[in-house]
Amino acid sequence: MEYYPSAYLSHSVVRRSSKLKGLINEADKVCRKLTHLKTLDHSQERFGRAGFLGLFGPKVDLLGHYEKKLEDIDYNVRLERSSKEVAAAFVSFKTRFGAAVALHIRQGMKPTEWTTEPSPDPDDVYWPFFSASFFKRWFCNVAVYAACAVLIVLFLIPVLIVQGLTHLEQLEIWFPFLKGVLRLEFVSEVVTGYLPSLILQMFLSLVPPTMILFSSIQGYIALSQIERSACFKVLWFMIWNIFFANVLSGSVLYRFQVFLELKNIPSMLAVAVPGQATFFIAYVVTSGWTNTASELLQLNPLFLSFFKKRFCNASSEEFDVPSIPYHREIPRLLLFGLLGVTYFFLAPLILPFIVIFYCIGYVVYRHQLVNVYAPKFETGGQFWPIVHDSTIFSLILMHLIAIGIFGLKKLSLASSLTIPLPILTLIFNSYCRRRFLPIFMAYSAESLISKDRSDQNDPSTSAFYEELKTAYQDPSLMPIPYPRNYDNSQTAPLLHTP
Amino acid sequence: MEYYPSAYLSHSVVRRSSKLKGLINEADKVCRKLTHLKTLDHSQERFGRAGFLGLFGPKVDLLGHYEKKLEDIDYNVRLERSSKEVAAAFVSFKTRFGAAVALHIRQGMKPTEWTTEPSPDPDDVYWPFFSASFFKRWFCNVAVYAACAVLIVLFLIPVLIVQGLTHLEQLEIWFPFLKGVLRLEFVSEVVTGYLPSLILQMFLSLVPPTMILFSSIQGYIALSQIERSACFKVLWFMIWNIFFANVLSGSVLYRFQVFLELKNIPSMLAVAVPGQATFFIAYVVTSGWTNTASELLQLNPLFLSFFKKRFCNASSEEFDVPSIPYHREIPRLLLFGLLGVTYFFLAPLILPFIVIFYCIGYVVYRHQLVNVYAPKFETGGQFWPIVHDSTIFSLILMHLIAIGIFGLKKLSLASSLTIPLPILTLIFNSYCRRRFLPIFMAYSAESLISKDRSDQNDPSTSAFYEELKTAYQDPSLMPIPYPRNYDNSQTAPLLHTP
Repeated sequence: MEYYPSAYLSHSVVRRSSKLKGLINEADKVCRKLTHLKTLDHSQERFGRAGFLGLFGPKVDLLGHYEKKLEDIDYNVRLERSSKEVAAAFVSFKTRFGAAVALHIRQGMKPTEWTTEPSPDPDDVYWPFFSASFFKRWFCNVAVYAACAVLIVLFLIPVLIVQGLTHLEQLEIWFPFLKGVLRLEFVSEVVTGYLPSLILQMFLSLVPPTMILFSSIQGYIALSQIERSACFKVLWFMIWNIFFANVLSGSVLYRFQVFLELKNIPSMLAVAVPGQATFFIAYVVTSGWTNTASELLQLNPLFLSFFKKRFCNASSEEFDVPSIPYHREIPRLLLFGLLGVTYFFLAPLILPFIVIFYCIGYVVYRHQLVNVYAPKFETGGQFWPIVHDSTIFSLILMHLIAIGIFGLKKLSLASSLTIPLPILTLIFNSYCRRRFLPIFMAYSAESLISKDRSDQNDPSTSAFYEELKTAYQDPSLMPIPYPRNYDNSQTAPLLHTP
Repeated sequence: MEYYPSAYLSHSVVRRSSKLKGLINEADKVCRKLTHLKTLDHSQERFGRAGFLGLFGPKVDLLGHYEKKLEDIDYNVRLERSSKEVAAAFVSFKTRFGAAVALHIRQGMKPTEWTTEPSPDPDDVYWPFFSASFFKRWFCNVAVYAACAVLIVLFLIPVLIVQGLTHLEQLEIWFPFLKGVLRLEFVSEVVTGYLPSLILQMFLSLVPPTMILFSSIQGYIALSQIERSACFKVLWFMIWNIFFANVLSGSVLYRFQVFLELKNIPSMLAVAVPGQATFFIAYVVTSGWTNTASELLQLNPLFLSFFKKRFCNASSEEFDVPSIPYHREIPRLLLFGLLGVTYFFLAPLILPFIVIFYCIGYVVYRHQLVNVYAPKFETGGQFWPIVHDSTIFSLILMHLIAIGIFGLKKLSLASSLTIPLPILTLIFNSYCRRRFLPIFMAYSAESLISKDRSDQNDPSTSAFYEELKTAYQDPSLMPIPYPRNYDNSQTAPLLHTP
């Protein structure tokens, strides 16, 4: 109100809610148990042991026990809700242009004390990092980069296990009692042929969730930002640990050493890349085609929901419509693009396989996006710069391989004529960064003001302003839905925020 | 007025003035000749040849000839002044905050069509690039980087000449007639000992003006920006062509190859750097100390003005107070900082020399800044990021040399314990970039608004607004001062802009 008196509309201060969230989750659980108990008739089942997994502790009246527990939680929740406010707030402005002004101008004298960010959609907000200071966020950022580097090195372990499995003799020495089983032809075929790739795929499928975890502690305030950052990390992880690991087929240290000798990169690549052509053709088929098929069949969610229903007695109503995991799908699509660009002149046989993959992918993903997934957030084209960067990287890699191959074949004229190509690609990239990247960063005054003016004549604007005042509330501070199911007067105060 | 109705004050459109500037310069010259002729008595001297250098062509009445010429120029100037406007303008705002808003928000839909830049001081404006489109400016930028690379490679030629001079036998073979002269002891001492460093210094003194030329075609609109960019270029040129050229003492190609093998850099530096310690101690004395002394004595301007007065009959009133050439002085100071940081643990003997250099420098430059130079523009601390970057670079270079030396002396533990140092330095750098660099980029809303509010109570503001309307006029469109000296009715219309 001090600096933007004409544009300011309202604000809602963020409160420290990490403890609260835990309490509310607990209350939720207890509530569910209570409703479950109430549906039962007044038999012996209402009595049980309240200790660990219901196995230990004295026998008590469970209904009374849970009600007592809920009371305690309620008290704690009220205590927490009056907890101190965090130095962060959502500020709403009357016009889009006013918001853009506050966003683009540094507010305070110190750049670290007072930062402004565009607020994400209300259900896209990631709450934990509102209480973090600039320094904490920056430190987390650095720590995450270090963790990513460690992860890339540690990924060597599953690769080593896999390489160990293909050598059965080694296994027999380690586990002598398996000798008899391993000598069976069927078992040995499974162990050497199928198991390695299964284990590798299993470990690879752990990468996207890990990267999401890393990105979530990096200081982002929106789930969409976290997913974008994870997408970027997964992409580089895959390029490094699938493309380069297979092409250079050595230890991580060896691969690092190759890249430390910049001069030798083209010739090294020229020697190593063509040798892996058949492997990557097989990879397109086994990984690309099958993944697209399993994407269509949704086998994982099917099995998961089947097991849940069978063993966890979860109610079928809790099923959410899934959103597409961009951070898992986009890097995979881009990796096949990279394979296509780098191999098209070395082994053109790979092209039909990739074209088929993209054709199937187009049909399948179009179907999935239209009929299966519900978008969790508007991407706003924010993933496109990642696609652009990856394409530029693929092109430069292709140029380098070409230079190396022409050098190997003693066509020094062709080799040196190819050298301008990566430079021109980089210049093109720099042009694109100046011409197109700003569009992804922020809206222009022209578009904002024209939108604002069309809004002025819209009668629904004032209703929207009213909505805005309550839109950005921490879900853990919102009225809790469960007391409706569980009509106990003790929890009623939870409905009103203090 | 469309987008910023409350903050907009006035604007002045830029006109295409490059032709006009040439015409006005010509008019200026002719005018001076006319006044010179008028001071002479009506003798034969008023008649001369109007052709090339006054040597050819028929004899004419010079007074009439020049008046005719001035008339032509006047006609052309009026024609040019009505020339079409350029798609650029200086826009003034009522408040600093209003200007900052227009500056920080992208205006048009296309980022390349409509760009905003903070306008420099009126006498700091560099006019030629207002007519340039985004694409032309971007292209010039790329071309300048290429030109810098070429210059660095071409600087090999003077270095080769210098290296040739130190081998007299070679010279005798090239120029046999010099054999007699070169055999004289005095001549050979001068040629081998003094001439090489003189030639090198001469070529080096050409670098700052060349870099200013490069920066001026890079698309900047302020002289201060041009000087800052040139400072950056000269710094890297000196680090590359003085530090690395002497340390690695080989051809440019050889030096490039060293840097292409990233792994070998520390060991290469560890071998090469200590060997040049004595050379750099001598360099600090010969280049650093003497340059500071000549800075104090201002020998070059003294000789220049002496020769001008003697041979060109220039009037003594035309002498401008010089401004300090930051782009020449700052890189030199930073280079000695680099030498100090990299050599302090290899050859501590260099330290007293550098300390003395900085002490003399402090006294001399303080005196020069206070008593001799007049600042041409407010730097606003904008050179500080260059100093910071150079210091970080020096530190990392020092760490790399330390790693290499510990490796050479087989202290592998010490070597690997030093590896975190450059990483920590880079992390510190990234912190500084986030914490401090934004301060150099733009003012904060807090400071702008408080300044604006204190201005509102200032009665001189409205007078300032009036001044603002005419402040940003191209000097070639301003009333020309010379017609006052030359009171001819024919040129009077030049006083009024059409």
